[in-house]
This record gives sequence, structure tokens and C-alpha cells, in this order.
Amino acid sequence: MNYFSSDFKLGILGGGQLGKMVLYNTRKFDIQTLVMDGSNEAPCKIACNEFTLGDLMDYDAVYNFGKQVDVLTIEIENVNVDALETLEKEGIKVYPASKTLKTIQNKAKQKLFYVDNNIPTAPFSRFAYSSEIKEAINHGGLSLPFVWKSAQFGYDGQGVKIVRSIKDLEGLPNVECIAENLIPFKNELAVIVARNVSGDIKSYPVVEMEFHPEANQVEYVICPARIDAEVAEKAEGVALKVSEAFDHVGLLAVEMFQTEEDEILVNEVAPRPHNSGHQTIEASYTSQFEQHLRSILDLPLGRTDSKVGGVMVNLVGAEGYTGNVVYENIETIMGMEGVTPHIYGKQQTRPFRKMGHVTIVNEDLNEARRIAEEVKKSIKVISK
Amino acid sequence: MNYFSSDFKLGILGGGQLGKMVLYNTRKFDIQTLVMDGSNEAPCKIACNEFTLGDLMDYDAVYNFGKQVDVLTIEIENVNVDALETLEKEGIKVYPASKTLKTIQNKAKQKLFYVDNNIPTAPFSRFAYSSEIKEAINHGGLSLPFVWKSAQFGYDGQGVKIVRSIKDLEGLPNVECIAENLIPFKNELAVIVARNVSGDIKSYPVVEMEFHPEANQVEYVICPARIDAEVAEKAEGVALKVSEAFDHVGLLAVEMFQTEEDEILVNEVAPRPHNSGHQTIEASYTSQFEQHLRSILDLPLGRTDSKVGGVMVNLVGAEGYTGNVVYENIETIMGMEGVTPHIYGKQQTRPFRKMGHVTIVNEDLNEARRIAEEVKKSIKVISK
Repeated sequence: MNYFSSDFKLGILGGGQLGKMVLYNTRKFDIQTLVMDGSNEAPCKIACNEFTLGDLMDYDAVYNFGKQVDVLTIEIENVNVDALETLEKEGIKVYPASKTLKTIQNKAKQKLFYVDNNIPTAPFSRFAYSSEIKEAINHGGLSLPFVWKSAQFGYDGQGVKIVRSIKDLEGLPNVECIAENLIPFKNELAVIVARNVSGDIKSYPVVEMEFHPEANQVEYVICPARIDAEVAEKAEGVALKVSEAFDHVGLLAVEMFQTEEDEILVNEVAPRPHNSGHQTIEASYTSQFEQHLRSILDLPLGRTDSKVGGVMVNLVGAEGYTGNVVYENIETIMGMEGVTPHIYGKQQTRPFRKMGHVTIVNEDLNEARRIAEEVKKSIKVISK
Repeated sequence: MNYFSSDFKLGILGGGQLGKMVLYNTRKFDIQTLVMDGSNEAPCKIACNEFTLGDLMDYDAVYNFGKQVDVLTIEIENVNVDALETLEKEGIKVYPASKTLKTIQNKAKQKLFYVDNNIPTAPFSRFAYSSEIKEAINHGGLSLPFVWKSAQFGYDGQGVKIVRSIKDLEGLPNVECIAENLIPFKNELAVIVARNVSGDIKSYPVVEMEFHPEANQVEYVICPARIDAEVAEKAEGVALKVSEAFDHVGLLAVEMFQTEEDEILVNEVAPRPHNSGHQTIEASYTSQFEQHLRSILDLPLGRTDSKVGGVMVNLVGAEGYTGNVVYENIETIMGMEGVTPHIYGKQQTRPFRKMGHVTIVNEDLNEARRIAEEVKKSIKVISK
């Protein structure tokens, strides 16, 4: 297939920020794009050739949209997988595959997949309903503390709770879920693996998610991670194994824990461009967004190493502010060395809503990390 | 003015490739954009918030468009300057200023400006009509060879001819023009200077335009130029002087000759993002397109130094092919290290038409230059 011809059409399910950043790269290659999203305010609307308003979970909407394109990809996991399966049978190229998405969409299935494929992950129990958990504890089949995770729709930290006492079980939705051992870890790491249709594989350097010591929230993504070469190699090996197990096409972001004993355990994966790869725009030879396109269009993969050190800071809505967003001190941070803000263009802020990110690049990673802290201290996402 | 508010509107006159690359960066900062262009096929149409079809040389069209925005900029010099002047008087911020554009639009005026401001440039004579040239030669006021340049609309190498004999005068349009001494030069260099509204100035490293030995066409833009530090410093000094003389706001690309005696002579300037700065997307800390926005929005300027060495190759239509474009071997070049194609999305190719560019980045500039040659040898812009 000639991707650089005007007949070729790429479809993207989901019209959010990740899709928008993929779309900028389709323009570089002059690829015709169709996007479907459930909101008429989707950021992608302005950047694609054709926009379709449609429910991503609706079989007919996804099927009818997919029938128009040559290659179909996603920028969010929660789409109607049955429709993707039908489209695949009818010859549309769907990356990631419906089979992969089906496994990833359900956290219990995802965990079982790791076990089946001999991929290290934290021990867990699976429950059809949260209400069964108390009984398991009472019978000694499960011990506190543990991490409760809803099996379905656990997008972006939603549907996760640390359960330290029976009391913490109160208020949990009574859904299919898992209870995962709470593993003390030194670092949370991530590796993005790119694999094209022909099976060529490249992985990005291991990144480190640095947490706020009190808030238990990722504050910085640091590339490359400040860890021993051995640990980095091990993490990369695990990530590659996950990608191969899925027979994955496209990007696969593999989030992992580095335990106190330097074991690597897979936490979860995302089969698309990922928050842990935003710094690749400024820091890497090939951005994750361009790499995703190269992968699904079966083009040669680009270099994944870094030009310079990169640190990414998420811009989230400050606590106590809801309404029309104002980026206080954005001009101040733009005066700092190697700082690029990426504002997502959402009109309304609310506490912890992802409103953008800021990348800081520097030939010296420690200097980038220092400036990132200045950025974090200066900018405030508030409302007017 | 708060540029990061939904009320703020940026207008761009011209909807071509340069504008499109500026627009990608407006999205990063979530700036509302309006674009006017004379063609409904303009590449910017897909990337801006509002597109207006209108003649850029028409007073009313430019005036009415400009009245809607807070800041107005250009991506092509040939726009109605009188309308810009009126808009300035009525409080619209126009960058570059109408006065600057008026001087630059006319090559004779531009040359006189250099003379008036003590900026080194090749000696020249000015003629109201080309027909006056022959007489000047006959009377000994002008000697062969020289470079004939039309004073108006000399965009992109059009309207330039080397005159070596009286016979070469045949067929020249009978318009206002200059005859410039033909200076033998070692290198053609360029420096892009960024200056924001507050007057902060930063310049990009000197780049070298490497010519094809026979075709006398720029083949590679190389950043940084492979020249002595002294010469680079001199070129940078001249470029800064030009920017200050114009009291310029925005980007100013200053093209210069390095003579056999290592003198620096200004050839011409472009008050906007420029072909000699395309490699900044991949090679520099701040791309020229982001920097243009930072300048005209009076934001702090970004770092202008390079992360890695960069070489740019223009993709022009091959001789002998006119029609629906095909990029032969584009997959081959994408398999080479650090290669990013930028396809402009024009449907039709014709000989020498600018269809895109390719950037090659590498930590070793010589390696980038070597790969650039491979790229040049491999890719062919032909028709099917």
C-alpha cells in the first residue's frame, strides 16, 4: 500500500490530546486522516481531514467509521472491540489488534496474560464482585494491605484504591476487580516499545516516574531514568518480552515497578502513545507520535535514543479552582532554559484535571531536573 | 495582553507551508488563529481555527481580515502594505511592521536601506526600467558581468538573472530593477535573528547553503556552517546589525555571502520563518516556528543553540515530470538514521517545484552530511 498517496486513509478512534499529537505528524507525511470522537469539542477536530461525531463504545458507530479507512488506530483503549474484530475480518488493518485491546481493557485478563506468558507482575487475586473481597479476607485467602483495581475502565488512575483496612472497602463499586499485593518499590519505571507491521522492534530508553514524597502523585517523568545500567537492561528486556507476547503493532508503553530487591514487575500497559513518552517530542531523535505512525504504517522505525536529557512535568488543575482556566506564570516558565509548554486547550479547569504538560530539555539531565522543579514551583493552573 | 486566553486572536496572512508550521506551534500554546490566503487549497486551511479566502494584495481584503485579530503576522512578504499601515494606526499589532515590509518588498529600496545603515552589501545600480541598462553599459556606467534583479516580487529566486553579455539582456521584463556586482564568493551563509516586542534578541547559529557544483542550486543547508569561528562571528554581527536597523519584531532571516576575502555581504532578508531554518525543528532547542510566535507575542525567546548537527535537503520536483506526485523511495530514506521527511501535501509536481524538505540530524555533523547525500541520491519526486 502506498501511504504517501492521496487515496490512503488513516482512521483514529478518539479525538483527544494524544490523537492531536499523532495528527501533527500525519501532516508531515501528508497522510489523509479521519477521526471519530464522542465530543464535538475534541481537540483533534481542528487537525484532521474529516471528523465524525460518534460513540466510541457503539458497535455500529465504530464499524461504519472503520469501513472508510485503510488503517485504523486508537488513541484511547475504551472502544468497541467487537466492531474492530469484524473490521479485521473484513480486511481493515487494525493496530493495535482487537485481541490485544480485549486483553488490555480488562485488568484481570491483562494480569492473567502476564502470568500465562511468564512476565513478572505482582501477585493478585481476581474477584467477580468487590463484595467477595471481605469474605476472602475473613477466610484468610487475602491479607491486608492490597491494591484494589476495577477490572474494567481503569483509565488513568481511576478505579484504583489502596486498601489498608476493612473500612477502606466501603464505597468501592461492586464490580469485577482484582486485589493486588502492595509491593514496596524504589522506582516506577516505563519503557515504550515500538513494533512495526513487519516485526521490527525498537525501544525507547527507560524513564523514571518521580513521585511527590507526600501526595503520591507522579511529578516528573525523567528520561533516561537515573538507575543502574543493569536494572535498565532488565526493565527493557521485560518490556520487549511484553511487546512480543502481545505480538504488538504500534506503540506499547509498559509501566513497571523496580522493587526494593531490584526486581522488575509489570504494572500495566497502554497500547498507544503515552504520558511517559511526551518528552520524546523535544528530547528524542524520533517522537513517540511519529514512531506510532511509522509502526502502524509499516515504515522503518526511527532512532529511539535521546538527543539531550528530558524531563516532563504534567500540568494539572490546582486544588480549589474550577472554571475558565488561567495559566499563571506561563511567561515566567517560558523564560527558563529549554522549557516548552504544551497547553491542551481545554477551556475549563478542575482539581487534578490534565490540562497540559511542560517539557524541559538540557544537555545535562540534572540541570533539566533542577529547572523542572522551578517550573513546577512557578506555574499554576487556576481559574479566573 | 493575555495570549493564553480564549479571547486572543492571531492572524496570519498567507496560508502556505511556513504558515502551517507556525500553526502547529500555536496549538501547543492553544492560541486561536485566523488565516487568509488566496487559494482554497492552502495547506493552512486544515490547521487554523478560521480560514478566509482573500487576495493578499487587496487592500480591503487585508484590512477587513486584520480588523478581526489582536496580532497580525505574515508568512509571505507580498501582501498589501497600505492596509497593514492603516491597521497599525488603528491599534492592531502588526509584526513585521508595514514599514519593514515596504522596504523589503522592493529590492532597490532594500539595497538602499543597507547603504543608509552602513550594512555591507554588494555594490549595485538602480534602474527605473530594465531598458535603461543597455545605455548604462554603453556609457561605461555599468560593466559586465552583473546580477540583474527585478525590484518587485523577487520571491524565491524568481526575477534574478546573471547577465554576462549584452545578449543576456534580451527577454528581461522592462521593470524597475537593480544591477548588482557579481561577487565571487566562497560560501552563502544565513543567520536567523529573533527579536521580540520588548527588544530581546537571539540569533541562531550561522548556517551554510551548500551549492551543487554544476546546477548552481542550493542542495544542502548545514547547521552549523563549516566555517572559521571568526567568520561566523562576523556574519552573526552583521545579521544582528540588520535586525536592529529594521527595529525588527519577529524572525529575520539574513542571507549573506562570504567573499573570497572573508568579507560578509548581505544578499537579502526575509522577515519570517525561512527555508534556511527548517532544520531547527529537529536540530535546535527551539524551532524557528515556535520562536517566531514567541517573538511576535512578546514572550521570552527560547534557546537558539543546537541539540545536534542538522542538515536540510529541499525536495523539489524532478525535471521531466509534471502531474500527480509520487515520492519514490521515501521508505528507503526513512530507514536511514535520523531522517525526517516533511511532505508539503501538494498534489501536483512540476520541475523544481518545492514539494517538501528532509531533515537529517546526527550528533556528528559530518555523518549527517553524509546521510544527506544518501537521501539526495535515493529520493525522487516524480509523477505517476
